[in-house]
Amino acid sequence: MLKPIEWGSDHVKIIDQRRLPSCVVWLNCFTSDDIAEAILTMKIRGAPAIGVAAAFGLALAALRYNGENTNELLLIIKNAALSLKKTRPTAYNLFWAVDRMIKSAENNSRTVEQCRKALEEEALLIMAEDQNMCKAIGEAGAELLKERDYTRLLTHCNAGALATAGWGTALGVIRSAHFNGMKIHVFVDETRPALQGARLTSWELSQEGIPYTLITDNMAGFLMQKGKVDAVIVGADRITSNGDFANKIGTYSLAILAKAHGIPFYAAAPYSTVDLSLSKGEQIPVEERSPDEVTHIKDVMIAPHGISVWNPAFDITPHQYVTAFITERGVILPPFQENFSSVYQEKVG
Amino acid sequence: MLKPIEWGSDHVKIIDQRRLPSCVVWLNCFTSDDIAEAILTMKIRGAPAIGVAAAFGLALAALRYNGENTNELLLIIKNAALSLKKTRPTAYNLFWAVDRMIKSAENNSRTVEQCRKALEEEALLIMAEDQNMCKAIGEAGAELLKERDYTRLLTHCNAGALATAGWGTALGVIRSAHFNGMKIHVFVDETRPALQGARLTSWELSQEGIPYTLITDNMAGFLMQKGKVDAVIVGADRITSNGDFANKIGTYSLAILAKAHGIPFYAAAPYSTVDLSLSKGEQIPVEERSPDEVTHIKDVMIAPHGISVWNPAFDITPHQYVTAFITERGVILPPFQENFSSVYQEKVG
Repeated sequence: MLKPIEWGSDHVKIIDQRRLPSCVVWLNCFTSDDIAEAILTMKIRGAPAIGVAAAFGLALAALRYNGENTNELLLIIKNAALSLKKTRPTAYNLFWAVDRMIKSAENNSRTVEQCRKALEEEALLIMAEDQNMCKAIGEAGAELLKERDYTRLLTHCNAGALATAGWGTALGVIRSAHFNGMKIHVFVDETRPALQGARLTSWELSQEGIPYTLITDNMAGFLMQKGKVDAVIVGADRITSNGDFANKIGTYSLAILAKAHGIPFYAAAPYSTVDLSLSKGEQIPVEERSPDEVTHIKDVMIAPHGISVWNPAFDITPHQYVTAFITERGVILPPFQENFSSVYQEKVG
Repeated sequence: MLKPIEWGSDHVKIIDQRRLPSCVVWLNCFTSDDIAEAILTMKIRGAPAIGVAAAFGLALAALRYNGENTNELLLIIKNAALSLKKTRPTAYNLFWAVDRMIKSAENNSRTVEQCRKALEEEALLIMAEDQNMCKAIGEAGAELLKERDYTRLLTHCNAGALATAGWGTALGVIRSAHFNGMKIHVFVDETRPALQGARLTSWELSQEGIPYTLITDNMAGFLMQKGKVDAVIVGADRITSNGDFANKIGTYSLAILAKAHGIPFYAAAPYSTVDLSLSKGEQIPVEERSPDEVTHIKDVMIAPHGISVWNPAFDITPHQYVTAFITERGVILPPFQENFSSVYQEKVG
């Protein structure tokens, strides 16, 4: 199974996703700061993958501590947690994983060694859980798609193995459907500005031998008008209790286009993406990134120098546009407010 | 006035639009084949500009002929016309201008010299008319916008001076509004794959000092959700008798997004764009261009090698999504079928 992140007992190995698809370069991260930098610069990206990476970041912070004072260690971990949380504001999995790691540290602070060991185990558990959740999401989604002999799916950004600890969410559904022998074709939005679709999703699908066609983001509407899309499936970076969700910029436009063409619109995401503390999407902070991502493509300037640019990394899709969420606990239909609280009730408590 | 094409008495000068915005390079075209190549490779692009260039192409074909046989000359001109018509299938202005030039040649075929002179004059007339039509479109559009103190317009591709003989259609409206002292702000879709928005529209607006913000195409929906767009204004490559129209890929998605947000959606175009021989948009041939435009940006590879790509250069927007057409004969409202036939009745005959 393709995995973008691996634990190396005293360091973390990640695939530098900025270099894909031209080359596969593994980076070694030895400190929590290394992880924070990798998240900030999108060497590792994708909501669940960021959560897993941050968890390992805190395990590394504990490993790098060479004192014997558990209070000091806890302070170091909490500072590292703050730095990690500052990297990217939108994806909830980052906060969820970091908070879970801090709780684990606090519950295992009898000795420095116990704390180190607990954090390593917790991070490994978060990674393993994420892989299992993705597999379960994949199966739930494949079940949903099996009514058709042949399904043409449109996806946006990369919600694949690279965006998770492995297998993927939206691409996890596609992967599961493919490995279950279902006939599918994937249309891949290139996903400007960072081109995760063109660079990462295309690469993953090529690796798996899953048939696909790359389009620019602005072709999705015309593709739907021509009757070539049976369903849209995307990932999610944060889901609020009413079913609104943040995802890569362009997702909201796709949701509107899907509705206008009567095409089902699915978001696939694990438990760790759901933020029941927020009641609606407009409460989600949306990260704005550097204008350079828009004015340059891989260091090539494509617009006049010094111009005004708006570069939100995410947008918010209101729940009215979502046909269903595909989760590791099955397919969740509207009304989301009610159905989330029954499926995720232990999370609220 | 910024003009992308100029007549040099025995050659045509065009700005190589592929090189913008990094440098302004003028190319000299001496033959009809030079013009055809420039259109094919998008050194000159934009429906009205292509029409003007093709007209000059036929004037050049006559100039380069050094025999004395008018029948032979007419044959050469008709062959050149065929080559020009083959370059790009969607924009109607190309066919309109070429047919007008052929008619002029046929009506002035007493001597080779008379024919040469007539074609030069006709091409110059087509260019001058296009500039005048753009100015009139600009005034009609500015009038439409003047109800607001401050208008935030979203535009797609480049329907500017560069896309016409000068002034522009959609950008002509923006230019006229600006020069009439109206306060406007332009949001510019970068317009993948060829980036006419990022490269050309941004450059034109910078030259004029008109305030603007560049976005990627997939940000338009979120921008509208945030209430930041008062109207969408685009150009058109071919308008059919029911008001459906072809324009740069991504226009249809914008039209749906505008409707979903209750935002007026305008298409600005001259007479030469209207093809009353077609009754609806699906009859318009849509050009598909090289996959390289999607997999590469300025020679930089952004997707795995050899993958499947769909690259339609245009899409079709049904008339139901159009608030009004802005033309040199004023603003045309629905029902377009009826209103076109009264405004353009002499064209039908």
